[in-house]
Amino acid sequence: MRSEIAESVSVATRLIADRARFEAIGTELARRNPSVVVVAGRGTSDHAAIYARYLLEHALGVPVALAAASLLTQYGIESASPQSALLAFSQSGAGPDMIALVESAKRRGAYSIALTNDANSGLAAAADATAYLDAGPERAVAATKTYIAELISVALIAAAAARAVGRDAAWANEIEALPARMQASLDAASSWITSAADAPVFGALLRGNRTLVVGRGFEYPNALELALKLRETTAMFADGYSAADLLHGPIASANAEVPTIVLSTDPATEKSISGSLERLRAVSAPLLLVHSGASGSRGMAPLEELALPNGPSGPLCTPVTAIAGLAIIEAVATGRGLNPDAPQGLTKVTKTL
Amino acid sequence: MRSEIAESVSVATRLIADRARFEAIGTELARRNPSVVVVAGRGTSDHAAIYARYLLEHALGVPVALAAASLLTQYGIESASPQSALLAFSQSGAGPDMIALVESAKRRGAYSIALTNDANSGLAAAADATAYLDAGPERAVAATKTYIAELISVALIAAAAARAVGRDAAWANEIEALPARMQASLDAASSWITSAADAPVFGALLRGNRTLVVGRGFEYPNALELALKLRETTAMFADGYSAADLLHGPIASANAEVPTIVLSTDPATEKSISGSLERLRAVSAPLLLVHSGASGSRGMAPLEELALPNGPSGPLCTPVTAIAGLAIIEAVATGRGLNPDAPQGLTKVTKTL
Repeated sequence: MRSEIAESVSVATRLIADRARFEAIGTELARRNPSVVVVAGRGTSDHAAIYARYLLEHALGVPVALAAASLLTQYGIESASPQSALLAFSQSGAGPDMIALVESAKRRGAYSIALTNDANSGLAAAADATAYLDAGPERAVAATKTYIAELISVALIAAAAARAVGRDAAWANEIEALPARMQASLDAASSWITSAADAPVFGALLRGNRTLVVGRGFEYPNALELALKLRETTAMFADGYSAADLLHGPIASANAEVPTIVLSTDPATEKSISGSLERLRAVSAPLLLVHSGASGSRGMAPLEELALPNGPSGPLCTPVTAIAGLAIIEAVATGRGLNPDAPQGLTKVTKTL
Repeated sequence: MRSEIAESVSVATRLIADRARFEAIGTELARRNPSVVVVAGRGTSDHAAIYARYLLEHALGVPVALAAASLLTQYGIESASPQSALLAFSQSGAGPDMIALVESAKRRGAYSIALTNDANSGLAAAADATAYLDAGPERAVAATKTYIAELISVALIAAAAARAVGRDAAWANEIEALPARMQASLDAASSWITSAADAPVFGALLRGNRTLVVGRGFEYPNALELALKLRETTAMFADGYSAADLLHGPIASANAEVPTIVLSTDPATEKSISGSLERLRAVSAPLLLVHSGASGSRGMAPLEELALPNGPSGPLCTPVTAIAGLAIIEAVATGRGLNPDAPQGLTKVTKTL
């Protein structure tokens, strides 16, 4: 897992160099002029799909829906049409539910895109277009480099789509800076891990059985994914929440025994995050605030901080924070004496309908 | 909380008697012929919105999207159009994020529907149509009768919409049977609670700090809502998962210390639920299987069971299971010596953007 996290930087570099094939998909997606885009995935790929849910709505200005696969697979309801488009995410490309969604989309005239790390998979064969993740074989059960490859692929597709429809794509100018920022982010996380032995939040992560991860907007997919990764590698209960949803009930479960990681790298969401941070501090949750130089804790002690070299662009904060967060999760699992490459009770490919 | 749960039956009776005003909204929604419907809510209302996400896609055959409010409130992205429609759920009708979504919808020509328990609220004033929940004042912080009122309102709106577009609405023929079924369901839950003192799963719920709730399809909103209600009233970590999503990682956190409630009242999802049930049994999770007479555990001992008087109609299982599940959560909170009417750190109305 650790080496695959580090490898994410070269995966990102490779995908960005190969951007033309993603841009062709994004341009075609825009040309189809869908009135709604549907995204689908399971587990880690679900969280990459949620990134696409945000970024494609940003890029195209039309509603994006997260698929409810059960409507198709359990109830036989088909909602695709020539006015819709589908992005289906599956590292293995073998998920029967994802393949069923793509087949339904094709049958009903919707443009379908597969994002998969196996160009010869059933998912790739079924879809109109394949965004091959080119991440190399992923051996750890807990997906890391394929998550980041999915994020980068989505960013490249969305950037081309935004340009094709004449919407704001200024954020995309920084895509080429991502690999360097990701490397700097990983380095910052590694330094923090080395120095964090005495931080209350790190101790709580090593000992506890519950963790909260809070984000907003383009950090929300990371909040979900880091929580899932903690759950997979340590068997603890870890939950990701948007800073807004947290306050509508779940805040009741925050307390001094529950380490909480707050992702606040995007100045656009800083006010929303601050509201949650205040409530978390009021219940003495052991906190780790991950922020970019721009935001930060403004000296609110006692608070453990990790500053990442994020730029100001919300939509691209996701892969930069992801690599740092994943490194921290890996260190927590290892620090608990566990082998994060082979979590108990999980297999690399899970097939559901 | 306990009396408000019981009151849900008369609330349902009242709403069904008053069905014409919901049917008018459903018919108008269908007449607008949206190519996508967007639903939005926070906390408990988020889960009612997810019920609408499933049932309106079932009823209209077009994609339904759960809103990502932050795109509007944090990033200024507007995606509503005359081809879209919005349902915004807020018990108080005071949520600034919900009001912002409705205002954006109106500005951009999308038909907007408010579901709220305050007909004079800001949300009701902003929307094109208001589905007033008529549930009476809700005093417990943990919402129960307004959740069920939202479910019934959605069912009435969706039934009219399905009929208006000529799609299958056979499931809706049983709406009038709901209050009696809900009462029978509540009675069954009350009996189980009385007799459950020695059940391992009940003991684990009274002592533990982590719980899983598993559902699929039309039980998925209940899985989320029962988990939230446990979290709000006991401060434990409780998580709702679809039976499919559970297997893509979160199953790693299931074990003999984690009581797990499995909602399996809908024969359509029985196979999917069985797959999860098998995995949960393999790790010795203390289980409570909630099922209708039709499905059930087929004698898989040792397994605690609660049989509910559900009929065969998937889309209407939700309120019938909800009332039973809420009664169990209330008993757990009370059994832990807590006051579920006033959970620590929560207020009745939460305002976020």
